[in-house]
This record gives sequence, C-alpha cells and structure tokens, in this order.
Amino acid sequence: MRISNRVKSLISSPIRKLTPYADATRASGKKIYALNIGQPDIETPHEFMDAIRNFEQKVIAYGPSKGNPNLIAAISKYYKDWNMDYEAKDIYITNGGSEALLFSLSATCDPGDELIVFEPYYPNYSMFATELGIKVVPISLNADNGYRLPPEEEIEKAVTSRTRAILVTNPSNPTGAVYTKEEMERLARISLKHDLALLSDEVYREFVYDGAYVSFGTMPALKENLILIDSVSKRYSACGARVGCVICKNPVFQANMLKCCQSRLCSPTLEQVGAAALYTTPKSVLEAVKAEYIKRRDTIEAELAKLPGVKASTPQGAFYVMVTFPVDDSEKFAIWLLEHFDIDGETVMFAPGNGFYQDPEKGKKGARLAYVLNCDNIKKAIHILGEGLKAYPGRDK
Amino acid sequence: MRISNRVKSLISSPIRKLTPYADATRASGKKIYALNIGQPDIETPHEFMDAIRNFEQKVIAYGPSKGNPNLIAAISKYYKDWNMDYEAKDIYITNGGSEALLFSLSATCDPGDELIVFEPYYPNYSMFATELGIKVVPISLNADNGYRLPPEEEIEKAVTSRTRAILVTNPSNPTGAVYTKEEMERLARISLKHDLALLSDEVYREFVYDGAYVSFGTMPALKENLILIDSVSKRYSACGARVGCVICKNPVFQANMLKCCQSRLCSPTLEQVGAAALYTTPKSVLEAVKAEYIKRRDTIEAELAKLPGVKASTPQGAFYVMVTFPVDDSEKFAIWLLEHFDIDGETVMFAPGNGFYQDPEKGKKGARLAYVLNCDNIKKAIHILGEGLKAYPGRDK
Repeated sequence: MRISNRVKSLISSPIRKLTPYADATRASGKKIYALNIGQPDIETPHEFMDAIRNFEQKVIAYGPSKGNPNLIAAISKYYKDWNMDYEAKDIYITNGGSEALLFSLSATCDPGDELIVFEPYYPNYSMFATELGIKVVPISLNADNGYRLPPEEEIEKAVTSRTRAILVTNPSNPTGAVYTKEEMERLARISLKHDLALLSDEVYREFVYDGAYVSFGTMPALKENLILIDSVSKRYSACGARVGCVICKNPVFQANMLKCCQSRLCSPTLEQVGAAALYTTPKSVLEAVKAEYIKRRDTIEAELAKLPGVKASTPQGAFYVMVTFPVDDSEKFAIWLLEHFDIDGETVMFAPGNGFYQDPEKGKKGARLAYVLNCDNIKKAIHILGEGLKAYPGRDK
Repeated sequence: MRISNRVKSLISSPIRKLTPYADATRASGKKIYALNIGQPDIETPHEFMDAIRNFEQKVIAYGPSKGNPNLIAAISKYYKDWNMDYEAKDIYITNGGSEALLFSLSATCDPGDELIVFEPYYPNYSMFATELGIKVVPISLNADNGYRLPPEEEIEKAVTSRTRAILVTNPSNPTGAVYTKEEMERLARISLKHDLALLSDEVYREFVYDGAYVSFGTMPALKENLILIDSVSKRYSACGARVGCVICKNPVFQANMLKCCQSRLCSPTLEQVGAAALYTTPKSVLEAVKAEYIKRRDTIEAELAKLPGVKASTPQGAFYVMVTFPVDDSEKFAIWLLEHFDIDGETVMFAPGNGFYQDPEKGKKGARLAYVLNCDNIKKAIHILGEGLKAYPGRDK
C-alpha cells in the first residue's frame, strides 16, 4: 500500500528524533542529562492527583466535545485574574496545546494557504502545517539582537494574497525572547490590516524573568482576529496530562471550532478533572517555580559563558536557550555525545538546531537547550557538554 | 479573518448535533432517554480507577510518542489471546479510535485521493476525510438484506486510480451487521489486487451476538496492507478515557505512524495507566456485559416490532440498530420529540439517519438507535417513541 506524501514529508521532531540513540545509551547503563525536551523536573501540584483520586463516577463516559464545564470555568477565572475577559463560550478544551494548534490551523488555512512564523520556531508548527498542506513562510530572527521582531514593513513584505495567519509564541520557544508591547502592536496592525488570524501561543506566559509581559488577549482591537493557544503542560508541570485549549471571541470561528472538537468526540475525562484542580494551585506555588527557573536561567547562562566558542543569547522567558556550537554539525555532535562520550558514565542530550528552521542549514551549528533540570544538574550537564566539545572530532579548527 | 473551506464544509455529527436541543429540554426539567450516542451505562471495570489512584509518579511527564509500554504490552497479549500475533512495534497508542482513524487516513491518503466506505457509515469517517481533503466513495448497503456486502465485482467497480484505502467497520456501526469470512475475503482480495490499505475498525469485536466473528488480523495474506483500528471505549465502557490504537505490521507505515504520533508528542499519561489495567479485567466480566447486550438487543427488537410502520433490521453485533420511521424527516421528528413531546416529563433522543449517508436524502426517514440503556429503560424509551410517532404532525399519511 502507498504512504501519503503528506506524512512521508513530515520531518521528525529534532526534540524527539534522537530518542532511539538515547534509548541505546541508557540501555548501556549510561545516565543522560536531558536538555533536549521541555519536560520540567518540577513536581506537578498535588491538586491534580487529589482531584482524580476523588473522582467517583462509575462510568468513564464521553464528555462534552468542547470540554469539561468545570475546567472551562476555571480557565475563564484564570484569565479574569490576568484582566482578560473570556467566557465559557470562548474556550475550547483540546488534547494539549498540540491539538489546539492543529485545530486552529485547520480552521483558518486551506491547503496551499500561507502561515507566517518567526524562525527559529517550535518544530511541531511545521509538522502541523505539513499535515494540513499549509505553506510555512518563515521570517528569520537574529541571534545577535536577541531574536527581536523585525520592523513592521519587513514583516508585512511576507504577506501575500494566500496569507491567512501569523503564528507567534510569546514568550518564545525556542529563543526565550519576550516581545515588547510595541513589537506586538506591529503584529496586531498587520493582522487587522490584512484580516489575518493572529495565533498566539502563550503557554509559557508565567515564565517571564526580565521586563514586562503583555498578552495579545489584552488588546481589544484584536477581538475578532485573535486565537490564543494555551495549555497546563508547562504552567503546572503537567505535560503528560495533554490538556490545552483554544480561546477566541470570533463567533464564526467558534462554530467551526466546535465541529473540529466534535470530530474527535471529546478530550479525556480524568485529565480534565485534574486540570481543573490545577487552576486552584496557590499563586505562591507558581511564583516559587518561577524563582527556581530564574536561578536555572542564570546558572545555564553562567555555565555556557565558560565554554570557549559557544554563543548563547539571554532568554527573558520560557525555559530554553538557543546556542551556537563551534562544530561541523550539531546533530552529529548530539549523536556523538550519546554514542561515544561520557564522564563517569554520564552524558548530555540536546535538540539540534536544524529542525527549528525551514532551511536546516541555518540551524546546522545551533541547538536548543531546555533548562528544566535543577541547578546542580545543569552545572554537571554543561560541564559534560564543554568537555565533549573539546573531545569531539568535528569541532571547528 | 477567514475560516477555511475544509472546516466550513464539515457537517456536524448527527450523533451530537442535537445536543443544544437536548440541553434545552433537560433545562426545562424533562428527562431524556438517550439512544443517540454509543455511550453505554455499563460500569467501567474498577481496575481502571484502581490503577490510576495508585499512580505515584510526582511529575505528570511526557510519555513515549507511540504510547505507554505497559499498555502496548497489554494490547499485544490481548491479541495473542485472540490468536493474532502483534508485537510492541506493531502497536501505536492514540487518543481514542478517533485519532487512530485520523492518523491512518492521513498516512495513506493525500488530498484528492479516494476512500471506499460502506454506507450507512459512522459519520465521523466523513468528518476525518473532509478535514484531510480525502474523497469519500460510498458503496450503499441495503437494509432489506441485512446490510450484507455487495458481490466482489460490484465493490471493485468503485476502485479507481485514486483509490488508496477501504474502510470497514466490523461489527458495523451503525448497522450491527457482522461480516462473514467469505464477505471479508472479498475485501481482502480487492485490497491486495489493487494494493490498497484495508482499514478495519474493530472496536466492537467483543459484541457479537449471532454467528461467528473473524478479525481481518487473522488473515496472513493481508500482513502488509491491513491497518487495525481499536479502542478501549466500547470494550470496557471507557469512552471518556480516549484510548485507542493503530495496529499494523507494515514497516514503512510504522515509521510514518511514529511521525504522526510525535507531531502531538504523546497520549495522556493517566488514561493509559488505567487502560493498561482494563486489559486485566476478567473475561467473565466481558462475557456478562455481552449477555446483557444480547438481552437489550432482543428487547429493542421486540419493542420496535410493536410499532406500526417502523422497519428495523436485526443487528448481529455492536449495539446499534438502524430503523426507518414513517415520517417526513427523522431529524425534524427527533427535534420535535425534544421540543414538543413527553410522557410524564420523559422523552427520547436518537441519531437522525441523514448524517450516516453521503447523500442525506438516503437517510431522511432513517435513524440509528443505540441500545446502551438497560432493558427497562429501553422499553420505556421505545414506548415513548411509539407514542411520539402517533402524535407527530409529520407522520406519513
């Protein structure tokens, strides 16, 4: 039987493609410091399992397609605390931020339509677009200026008659940039001028370390054009729960989003019960987590600064840092670290930069490091990385 | 902003489209006997919640993209008990049978490719195809002969150069037909002759009441072409868990299915833990459930036979019966029952037949009834239906 071109042309995620190498490394008895994936080591708040353990219904039944009403109410309240007014009818629960993105792209772009993204970007953006036949139009950001957004006229040059949406992550995965209100207003103006959907992936909203954070949800002019993507994964260290949502005030979009939700019947029952309880986590817990990430950010920045030839920008938010290594090919280097290098039985893993760009060459020397380990482990991991760089045969001469 | 044609052209599921009417009816204080949706009232085996309550990991972390290894091992063992040899590498866990179908269609059909289905069909088949730009080519089955498959040459007439897959449900939703080995061999031969994918949705495997059941998985010749769709939803009355799987031995398909799984990172952690435990449910429990469904099938058949002008076939499996009502339009009748009819504050809801056909006219007088309520409630529901038919202004003269 034939395999479709759409799936054949999917490029494996740089975040997960090295898993087979890592499995073999672990099977050989080595320990790996995993900086490749945004999987925090922070404990999930106990409210999650408490609520699930107390679930008493005898039949694990289909729920409403648009989500558990208690969870939707909890999210609405959370947004009110952020001074954003989203009612139950505006919120659609999805299987993680992933499905929120897939449905939003599906509902706004037809095959052949164009989606503007800022590069480097979260690689799964491109996977969703490929699955849906959407053309990704990347606008390159520059490490040297901290991955700031380009001037308005430069962004607008990317808009064509086929452009349907702009997708932006704020705070950014993978760069850690947090956009200023002025930068965001550029995107808002372009979206409104050309009546584009503005898809704002704000799953790292709580993780801002420097400067002010503004959500697109606070800009009333965007009411009809803004689609917010959110998730409990990072906020509450509950990545495995796969609970996200799409938020939008446009009634036509809403009617169509409901059809997308109905097509897969509903999201899982128990994970939604747990997620609703997560929104009752005291704010002090989130604040402590943020303080911990600031320490980690400062630690990884200081440790990377000790490595000759390694360039790294300072992330202002999220929990990633993009680096450039003095090597021939960061993917080869990553595999070599897993297969051929260790210090006392320990090695390190990161996400090669090539998958964060449409043209893999642009990210050939780059990498994304996730500072999701505690400071001691970050120090050990970056030390191993530095020693590995010294020993790696493909190091730049 | 624009809404995509692909999502605009999605037709709301006949199973869920009446939900707003039902919500209003319930809000008015009426009770509804819900025969519209395949949501059993059977208790989910306690093994599900027991396993979840005992989950002790402190971080609800991303799992492997292809699924929890314990769940995969449990499914592999379950298939061995059915004399089918599927190893861990052949099994990909999905968010319900829904995602299993979406991924399998995505991986086998490009936009414009053709998918053969037998009509009446499960309406979400058509939703997934629409989302993916796949052309559904229906082959009509006939109520008068119990919805048997047509002769081989007639099926083969539907194959064109764009045909990529045949999708079949066995036992069938919505007809309740269980195909004979000879009928299945027709599909196997056509699939192999034209090198088509044969997608077999076998989620109702345990619910066969008359005659012998054969899985396509027992046909060795299909090894490279067969894609099995499975789920815990109906088997264990765990529809809200949203745990399904894709099973296939074709290594090229497997590599591409892994990319589909990676694109949404993973399935939910806890629901997979519970699902793995479901596979330890004693067989006697499943047998008792099946005995209960036989009683229900016999009950609904006997009750429907009492209603003048109502035609119903005898389902051999699953838990649905397709009926024809002596009315102008079964959707109008369904809405009328919700809005304008009750007996002592109770009414009944079913899925109008129009959404089970590509041409809605074909199902205009039809309906799917799910016998997922206990026998007493089935009797009450069919009594209300009968009285409603007498009173309905759009009844055939």
